[in-house]
Amino acid sequence: MRAVDVLKRKREGRELSREEIAFLVNGFTAGVIPDYQISAFLMAVCLRGMTPEETVALTETMLRSGAILDFSDVTGPKIDKHSTGGVGDKTSLIIAPLAAAAGTIVPMISGRGLAHSGGTLDKLESIPGFDVRLDEKRFHRVVSDIGFAMVGQTEAIAPADRKLYALRDVTATVESFPLITGSILSKKLAEGIEGLVLDVKVGSGAFMKTREDAETLARSMLSTAARLGTKAVVLLTDMSQPLGTHVGNALEVEESLAVLRGEGPLDLKRLCLRLTAHMLVLGGIASNVDDGERRAEEELRSGRGLSKFLDMVRAQGGDPRIADGGVLPRAHAQKEVSSGRDGFVDAIDTEMLGTAAMVLGAGRERVDDVIDPGAGLVVQKKLGDEVRTGEPLVTLHYNNDSRLVEVAEMVQKAYSLSHSPRPSAPELILAVLEQ
Amino acid sequence: MRAVDVLKRKREGRELSREEIAFLVNGFTAGVIPDYQISAFLMAVCLRGMTPEETVALTETMLRSGAILDFSDVTGPKIDKHSTGGVGDKTSLIIAPLAAAAGTIVPMISGRGLAHSGGTLDKLESIPGFDVRLDEKRFHRVVSDIGFAMVGQTEAIAPADRKLYALRDVTATVESFPLITGSILSKKLAEGIEGLVLDVKVGSGAFMKTREDAETLARSMLSTAARLGTKAVVLLTDMSQPLGTHVGNALEVEESLAVLRGEGPLDLKRLCLRLTAHMLVLGGIASNVDDGERRAEEELRSGRGLSKFLDMVRAQGGDPRIADGGVLPRAHAQKEVSSGRDGFVDAIDTEMLGTAAMVLGAGRERVDDVIDPGAGLVVQKKLGDEVRTGEPLVTLHYNNDSRLVEVAEMVQKAYSLSHSPRPSAPELILAVLEQ
Repeated sequence: MRAVDVLKRKREGRELSREEIAFLVNGFTAGVIPDYQISAFLMAVCLRGMTPEETVALTETMLRSGAILDFSDVTGPKIDKHSTGGVGDKTSLIIAPLAAAAGTIVPMISGRGLAHSGGTLDKLESIPGFDVRLDEKRFHRVVSDIGFAMVGQTEAIAPADRKLYALRDVTATVESFPLITGSILSKKLAEGIEGLVLDVKVGSGAFMKTREDAETLARSMLSTAARLGTKAVVLLTDMSQPLGTHVGNALEVEESLAVLRGEGPLDLKRLCLRLTAHMLVLGGIASNVDDGERRAEEELRSGRGLSKFLDMVRAQGGDPRIADGGVLPRAHAQKEVSSGRDGFVDAIDTEMLGTAAMVLGAGRERVDDVIDPGAGLVVQKKLGDEVRTGEPLVTLHYNNDSRLVEVAEMVQKAYSLSHSPRPSAPELILAVLEQ
Repeated sequence: MRAVDVLKRKREGRELSREEIAFLVNGFTAGVIPDYQISAFLMAVCLRGMTPEETVALTETMLRSGAILDFSDVTGPKIDKHSTGGVGDKTSLIIAPLAAAAGTIVPMISGRGLAHSGGTLDKLESIPGFDVRLDEKRFHRVVSDIGFAMVGQTEAIAPADRKLYALRDVTATVESFPLITGSILSKKLAEGIEGLVLDVKVGSGAFMKTREDAETLARSMLSTAARLGTKAVVLLTDMSQPLGTHVGNALEVEESLAVLRGEGPLDLKRLCLRLTAHMLVLGGIASNVDDGERRAEEELRSGRGLSKFLDMVRAQGGDPRIADGGVLPRAHAQKEVSSGRDGFVDAIDTEMLGTAAMVLGAGRERVDDVIDPGAGLVVQKKLGDEVRTGEPLVTLHYNNDSRLVEVAEMVQKAYSLSHSPRPSAPELILAVLEQ
């Protein structure tokens, strides 16, 4: 087999065999097939697409390029959740302990922030002492002891994905349904899980801006997971405004703790309960989503979810006193960005708000940027809210004021006001798609 | 400007600006933009195409990546011909001297054989002593003294094309009309010519197998040349059988000499006269194609074409006694491949015949293969000819018999016979396309 012949077939729009896909991906991972051939392949996939069979072959090859974890000695269903990312999306921090408190085993491997979208690892690292880089043995022990753990991808997990992602990032081949499917599922299925709840975000703060794109990705992930023997369900959820109000790393941990204490904003709480419910259903712990939601709510109300979270923080070296306030880093300065006129919030460019938080230090513009854990913003007005001239739209939290004017302008630009109120608030959960 | 942003725009099917294309191509040529980004770009171009403006920008950037020759001190119109390649296509060896004899200046830079298709440089190198690697100064002197010269591409000419072609070859991105246009025209226009006759071959022995593809490429080259200020005309010509009868390097020089002596097969002679006529028209030497053909025929009949060719051979170090026979290399052995049944030649897989000649040693299967200048084949039956059982279809010329059985089988397979004769022979010149 020659790489150039396989490339030619893909360029011509023919379906590649499992062997051809494995030949390219394994050859690239082993350093035998050069990056310039794989980048041509990736571009051909972006423009020609992949059949379901090709997507399965790609995902399985990527999955098998590294270790697949084994938690079979830990009692309980192994279920995880993945979100395609958004602004203020801190649900992992809330649902993993809730699901674990209800008897699910959640061996969660997460990622870092990407562009305007936050990352679970960055949020957790704002907790003093917290270690996301557990070795396989310690990861296994925490999952076994607490029922869940939250760590970063190791070298051993899906190395093909790491190499492919780095190449996609510099060759404009990130946006491709089969490539995204392969990347997400290869990492998640390497956790050795039985079921996966996928939160696919749609809207101005999501990577998928249209419902059609979100559904296409959702269908691709559902069918690929099914063919690889993993149960999955997709929740298509709204990202036309930040989830909750807090955006930024320590700020989001703070808001997550509030939810786990039974406080916090309603949209965030509702979504967390629903996601947890689906995890419990996939794990066979709840008989249906309503039953799952009742159980999740019970774990919340009883405080067992919060104490699970603090157990995990402690087990991963973090300071559990975060629950009492005071130990989480806070930015030294705050500044309100106020509305210049009266009106109703009609639309929010959520990606722009996420980018504003990033510029303040909550994310990385370049790979080697250092995150400021206290930086970020708190949204004061959400879709449909009435705003009067001079009222705050957003409160900025910052230590470095060098780009404050630029950030304030971004916030102003992100808000669109109208003279009359929106007919209705956007639906938080747009659809549930099953296998 | 960032390469990844330009790639993204191309992937999305947007038109790139002249600056964006120059940024990629010049960055790649300078070694600043890595090959893996350019191969993704090339694949995107293959699948998204290019607008006429983009093709012009690509061609001009490639052209200006190196030296553009200047023959303005040599009196006479500077006109060249390019063929997209085929089997037995030796017209360059005949028309360059005919056009030069009629007063045209032909600074011809040619290529080597590619796959089943022969190359002018390889043919010329079968002449003992012939040097295709003249430096710029000597190239200029031969053109100035004789009116034409035939050399290979130097490092100084269109380096962007050399780098891009090497990458296209290994990333399955050769077949693309704009990329082919850029590659052909950047090299030819670097000769500093005023007019270019393009022989675009169609059929089983050509790179373009359908008339539609050939016309698309023709239109792309004509409009690009026009926008770059170069007069051009395309002859769409038949390659559903070898041109003339001889295939192989010394064999083709021999057949070219026969035509220049007023002998040789009629199809080859007719095409050469017509191509020369168009060169004379572009150069303003003939008033129309009929007039041009008369003049070309006169240069042939008078022997001035032949003596021009021998002058050039002498000036480039070759042995002019090739005209008297005896000094051209000949293969030691010959073998006839005979027909197993009666019939009429209905179709010839000309690419397969070209490949058979290559396997005998007339071409390279791998870049580092050494050509056997005497090897090749002579076609005994052409389309429409009647064949009786045992009559020869082709005569093989070879020194190495290690793959003779395989080659004989290829020849048998290449010929399709029918019970009744074809209604007509294929038209040699299918169309003439102008700017």
